[in-house]
Amino acid sequence: MAGGSDGESVLSRVVRILEAFDAESPLLTVTDVSRSTGLPLPTVSRLVGDMLALGLLQRDDRRRLRIGIRLWELGSRAAPTLGLRDLAMPFMEDLHAAVGHSVQLAVRRDDSVLFVERLTAPGAVYNITKVAGRLPIHVSSAGLVLLAYGPTHLQQAVLAGPLRRYTAATPIDPPNLRSLLADVRRSGIAFCPGFVDDRATGIAVPLRANGKQVVAALSVVVPNDSTARAAIPALVAAGHGISRALGAPFQEVSR
Amino acid sequence: MAGGSDGESVLSRVVRILEAFDAESPLLTVTDVSRSTGLPLPTVSRLVGDMLALGLLQRDDRRRLRIGIRLWELGSRAAPTLGLRDLAMPFMEDLHAAVGHSVQLAVRRDDSVLFVERLTAPGAVYNITKVAGRLPIHVSSAGLVLLAYGPTHLQQAVLAGPLRRYTAATPIDPPNLRSLLADVRRSGIAFCPGFVDDRATGIAVPLRANGKQVVAALSVVVPNDSTARAAIPALVAAGHGISRALGAPFQEVSR
Repeated sequence: MAGGSDGESVLSRVVRILEAFDAESPLLTVTDVSRSTGLPLPTVSRLVGDMLALGLLQRDDRRRLRIGIRLWELGSRAAPTLGLRDLAMPFMEDLHAAVGHSVQLAVRRDDSVLFVERLTAPGAVYNITKVAGRLPIHVSSAGLVLLAYGPTHLQQAVLAGPLRRYTAATPIDPPNLRSLLADVRRSGIAFCPGFVDDRATGIAVPLRANGKQVVAALSVVVPNDSTARAAIPALVAAGHGISRALGAPFQEVSR
Repeated sequence: MAGGSDGESVLSRVVRILEAFDAESPLLTVTDVSRSTGLPLPTVSRLVGDMLALGLLQRDDRRRLRIGIRLWELGSRAAPTLGLRDLAMPFMEDLHAAVGHSVQLAVRRDDSVLFVERLTAPGAVYNITKVAGRLPIHVSSAGLVLLAYGPTHLQQAVLAGPLRRYTAATPIDPPNLRSLLADVRRSGIAFCPGFVDDRATGIAVPLRANGKQVVAALSVVVPNDSTARAAIPALVAAGHGISRALGAPFQEVSR
């Protein structure tokens, strides 16, 4: 690698700077970036200058930094999730029209779940997920599906904890989580009332490529009340539709 | 900048490597990347190694390179278009349910139009646009809206050509293009039968922030036949809905 003074590459520092920006902090000053990355202010200033020149970052009219639309473009136009997303979207739109609230498409990244698409509507019940946002894998319905069908070593590592609690219903007790994962594999559905937030129920189903390997999860987030189960049939149908569409040779996106 | 042997920075070379990947060529070998960027093979090999280690690129099971899901994540989770996209999506879904075929959201980037979102369906009429794809600004309905409401110096530069022809209907004659732009400003609609492809009609309307500045365009692509105009009322209504939603303080995304 092209070494900096302490041996860390330019590129690795650039990635650390990009990592400072997320949905909660999309606008940062150079000082914010220095504080958040732990990189010295002169280093950040110099790298930010290069990143601005290349469009990886841009400035707003108050000189705050944000992710550059050029970076979004480079990351999106050949994104590994694009094929999955394009196949899934018509089914997601129909599901969203039927169920309302929010519909998500998610893949596993190591021990977290990454949301690659999300349809929502004004007035939808509280939903923590964001496009390109992550959650720990044991918390959401989509994560529990991806964990239930994930590798055994991952299940063991997650069960060995620690597991973060979001609500009193979040499955953080290992025996409870183990039996929940067995339920998901048996029923093909993760039903998660109040796991992330008391107001919301997440429900998810696996998406399979070639009728076999689970490559993604489809989920809905609906109000946590007695009507939540009514969303299941439409969700299951949409999941089967997407899996059928995935029957064609498909580039796997999880790892 | 951190200079390479010929003075080009590491970061600028990394961006050139990323630029080699697009929707038409999402999978490339190291040799492909070297050929496409003009960078020497050893340089590409070394930089690709660093990019793989940081997740900016990933390899498929045939060792071909592709954009890394981590890069998509970093570019997407705080993307400058996210606010616009989130506001527009419910209206786009409704419009898509009503009109079918394809619905696009686009912003201007210099003299091209960048598509930030696209809803489509199996069986939709031919549509050249892709998410995070670009087109020259004079070709598509969304581009013509963004040009019609764009800065005068841009209109002059585009009218001074050269203008690429896609079909016999593409407006490449300067007087014709000038009168088309005036029509768009007068009617608030770009109606473009066969401009990109003989089979398709693009129709677009401007999206305004705070009731004033045009920050984006909303378009539909429908079959190029006598029914195309039937899509206009739903498109106009969706455009007004999004512009009303954009009435709140909004981070401008065009530049």
